[in-house]
Amino acid sequence: MPVKNGDFIKLEYTGKIIETGDIFDTTNEELAEEKGIFSDKKTYGPISIIVGGGHVLKGMEAELEGMEAGEEKTIELAPEDAFGERDPSLMQLVPMSEFKKQGIKPQVGMAITSEGNTGIIRSVSGGRVRLDFNHELAGKNLEYQVKVAEIIEDDTEKVKSMIDLHYPNPNLDSEKHQVTIEDDKVIIAMDEMAKFDQRPYMDVTMARFRIARDIQENMDITTVEFVDSFVKKEEVEESTEEEVSTEEVPEKLTEEETKEE
Amino acid sequence: MPVKNGDFIKLEYTGKIIETGDIFDTTNEELAEEKGIFSDKKTYGPISIIVGGGHVLKGMEAELEGMEAGEEKTIELAPEDAFGERDPSLMQLVPMSEFKKQGIKPQVGMAITSEGNTGIIRSVSGGRVRLDFNHELAGKNLEYQVKVAEIIEDDTEKVKSMIDLHYPNPNLDSEKHQVTIEDDKVIIAMDEMAKFDQRPYMDVTMARFRIARDIQENMDITTVEFVDSFVKKEEVEESTEEEVSTEEVPEKLTEEETKEE
Repeated sequence: MPVKNGDFIKLEYTGKIIETGDIFDTTNEELAEEKGIFSDKKTYGPISIIVGGGHVLKGMEAELEGMEAGEEKTIELAPEDAFGERDPSLMQLVPMSEFKKQGIKPQVGMAITSEGNTGIIRSVSGGRVRLDFNHELAGKNLEYQVKVAEIIEDDTEKVKSMIDLHYPNPNLDSEKHQVTIEDDKVIIAMDEMAKFDQRPYMDVTMARFRIARDIQENMDITTVEFVDSFVKKEEVEESTEEEVSTEEVPEKLTEEETKEE
Repeated sequence: MPVKNGDFIKLEYTGKIIETGDIFDTTNEELAEEKGIFSDKKTYGPISIIVGGGHVLKGMEAELEGMEAGEEKTIELAPEDAFGERDPSLMQLVPMSEFKKQGIKPQVGMAITSEGNTGIIRSVSGGRVRLDFNHELAGKNLEYQVKVAEIIEDDTEKVKSMIDLHYPNPNLDSEKHQVTIEDDKVIIAMDEMAKFDQRPYMDVTMARFRIARDIQENMDITTVEFVDSFVKKEEVEESTEEEVSTEEVPEKLTEEETKEE
């Protein structure tokens, strides 16, 4: 069965700028290392996406439709199907004196952040610095080598694929997520380690919202529940009680401190 | 029915140091303000506790047993039933020069933190500073005025009382927590606002762990589940769109006006 809109798939890809031949992104770890674009913040290997879910470029999604599992293909994307055309109004000429004020020695290729936007210095001449705030890939023709590594058919695996996509965490083991589907409801009990996430709870909620939305829009599911379960441990009661008393004493101490100041 | 060990109760109290007559803690907001010990980090009003749960001093718990709902009582606690005897080894003599090194001018009553412990300066004389690392209430005889405001009988209210105790948050409405009890399992869906907690997930987990532990030890409950539910929104798209457009018109007008000036 060829890939169609709404399918959950695992995708491998490598993206190249046609004009320069530079590889700028890949799911292949060895290739990333070889090309000097490896990042330890990225997870390598096939990524899980929904075709039509907006997880990759729209232009790429269109090309994925009709491909078979295991099939490889080279896709060419013109700027309008990728990162857009270059916008001349995003080029700025800044007097050299501005940089001197801030103690920066401008050099071609240097990235400068201004009001939250990042620009690249394109030229320095005549006391003026030309800054480019266009997306690095704007105006470029791109070539993607893509492979549909797998078309996910199993509903549980579909749910897990969206957890992998939106909740990337090297401490979590996808095998340990428990997914239960009851009619139009999915119940997700994530790997226990998820409970010890240091991120603000609100950020976790946003990730869960994205997982739920993708599942609801692409499966026959209305409700997505995330469950944290605490099951009574037999034994160990004594040590638990001890913990409480040692915990409470410093808390009171802290209060006293505040008062005295 | 008099209060017994394991009961969930709502408690009002005011604690006084017998030696000095100083009130150091109270659940009564007006009294806290009157006595100059009000803290905006504290929630006032009756607190929910389990008798024998270690939420208040062991000495107080013993005295609460046998009281009736609505009953008031004055409790006297000797140091060994409250914050312990004073430990002479927690007094330290520190040369004045140590303080000078750190640019501190030691004064009686000043709180000093050293290696995570807080001590109070008791005296400064002969080039020596006497630091006291005992708990402020160690060695004190305490008098508590207590009132059993309510004995909680309803299981749902028992669960909610532990949420109130361990998960204090002014943005949450206890009425909006949904508590479902099925045999030996409690399912808690907290007020939606809980999803937007800014605290690290791990801190939320610790609060949930305490709620679960207290419920498991004092009710016929084995499993406590916390559920965050995401339900697909019905597609009332048209009315939503209208709302957006009427909102946007005046906004744009304002922008134009500003431009024209």
